[in-house]
Amino acid sequence: MPQPRGILFDMDGVLYVGDQAVPGAAETLAWCRTREIPFLFLTNTSSRPRAALVEKLARLGITAREEEILTPPVAARAWLADHMDGPVALFVPPATAGEFRDLPVAGRDATSAAAVVVGDLGEEWDYATLNAAFRLLMTDPPATLVALGLTRYWQAPDGLRLDVGPYVKALEYAAGCEAVVLGKPAAPFFRAALDALGLPAASVIMIGDDIRGDVAAAQAVGIRGILVRTGKFRPADLEGDIRPDAVLGSVGELPEWWQGER
Amino acid sequence: MPQPRGILFDMDGVLYVGDQAVPGAAETLAWCRTREIPFLFLTNTSSRPRAALVEKLARLGITAREEEILTPPVAARAWLADHMDGPVALFVPPATAGEFRDLPVAGRDATSAAAVVVGDLGEEWDYATLNAAFRLLMTDPPATLVALGLTRYWQAPDGLRLDVGPYVKALEYAAGCEAVVLGKPAAPFFRAALDALGLPAASVIMIGDDIRGDVAAAQAVGIRGILVRTGKFRPADLEGDIRPDAVLGSVGELPEWWQGER
Repeated sequence: MPQPRGILFDMDGVLYVGDQAVPGAAETLAWCRTREIPFLFLTNTSSRPRAALVEKLARLGITAREEEILTPPVAARAWLADHMDGPVALFVPPATAGEFRDLPVAGRDATSAAAVVVGDLGEEWDYATLNAAFRLLMTDPPATLVALGLTRYWQAPDGLRLDVGPYVKALEYAAGCEAVVLGKPAAPFFRAALDALGLPAASVIMIGDDIRGDVAAAQAVGIRGILVRTGKFRPADLEGDIRPDAVLGSVGELPEWWQGER
Repeated sequence: MPQPRGILFDMDGVLYVGDQAVPGAAETLAWCRTREIPFLFLTNTSSRPRAALVEKLARLGITAREEEILTPPVAARAWLADHMDGPVALFVPPATAGEFRDLPVAGRDATSAAAVVVGDLGEEWDYATLNAAFRLLMTDPPATLVALGLTRYWQAPDGLRLDVGPYVKALEYAAGCEAVVLGKPAAPFFRAALDALGLPAASVIMIGDDIRGDVAAAQAVGIRGILVRTGKFRPADLEGDIRPDAVLGSVGELPEWWQGER
């Protein structure tokens, strides 16, 4: 393998757990900046604008800029700009819609669109709204279905709540199509990250706490996958078929590992 | 193969097309009655109560009783009575709910249920309603997901409209479960028909106009599948992998075929 030259950082569970910074996280990020190592934060969080993530990192002692955070809407915007010619219909929450403001947008009640972008609309998902997305997928030519991840559900204070994934699956089944998924663990999301870094997959590492969503998903596109023993890590993760390229106690050990590789 | 002893009739496209009876349909049904051949009507239509189907058949000269029509809700009710012990939560339209009136019913906002029954709720599908069904599938033990068919969509006067299938797929994906599907082409629906006839699969024939949903689906559970050249039949249907056990010009030719088999 060539020497690593760029880094993709998962955020939740790697840099912080809840509101607590992982020890060594701030130092590792400062080391990246001093060494001028290209890196990106890669997260499936799309309900909060990137500015809120920048603020959270700042509170934990990590300096970051919005453009260093790759979220599903940001990757989707880049994908759409590259692949689509016409207007896009947005089925995404208001906080997310801003990421698409420089693209031509079609109303949800339009008779056609180049793409239908589906995010975690939550309470806005009523029958008419889902049906409007469906109809745009059934025009000739059909709109391309673009999904901001495939998360199944999340834990709200009052109980479990459906996320974006089930609505994407409903639309895929209804229209007989397959969504372009921008979000871990889908390959197009990692490819968008490589495009943003301007580096080939073999020169990039992904560091995450999710053996499937981070490590195996990165490896599937040729990126080395490094697992940390923080966040959602469980010892049983190492007993399955997935072999991380490295396992670190935490992100704080990354500089030492990196030196060893070079 | 043993001689045929019982018959399953698809309705739409076999007995009538739109509001027109298929020539010979009434005569074939009268022949069944005279010969005392056990039969059932098998249809995925679940938005209209069976009484409305009986009326429609009567207008076309076919005498039928409600209990001779097997619909997804009727098959689901029988399946639930056989397999479930506790209350069932109904996510079905009012016209369908009556079919379940002799079962213990849980409210949609209950904290647990033995089963979640999902039908074509249409405009009633808002986020809270789908989420309520989802939460019942995530309890310990989880409710069993029972689907009244997997139809993708239907053609309404104002355009295409989502049917039950996409919502079932959303719930399956969200909860990581697989629905018990009562409706063509799913096997449990045909098995319910065999139970109602009291005959083994090898002694029963299914006559339909849908090479996949009627013919191949019946053959998958060991029932002979007979295709008619009416309704949605297209000559290309005979060029694929599916081999009907017989192909008839219409349901009117069934008595002659039957005599030839005996």
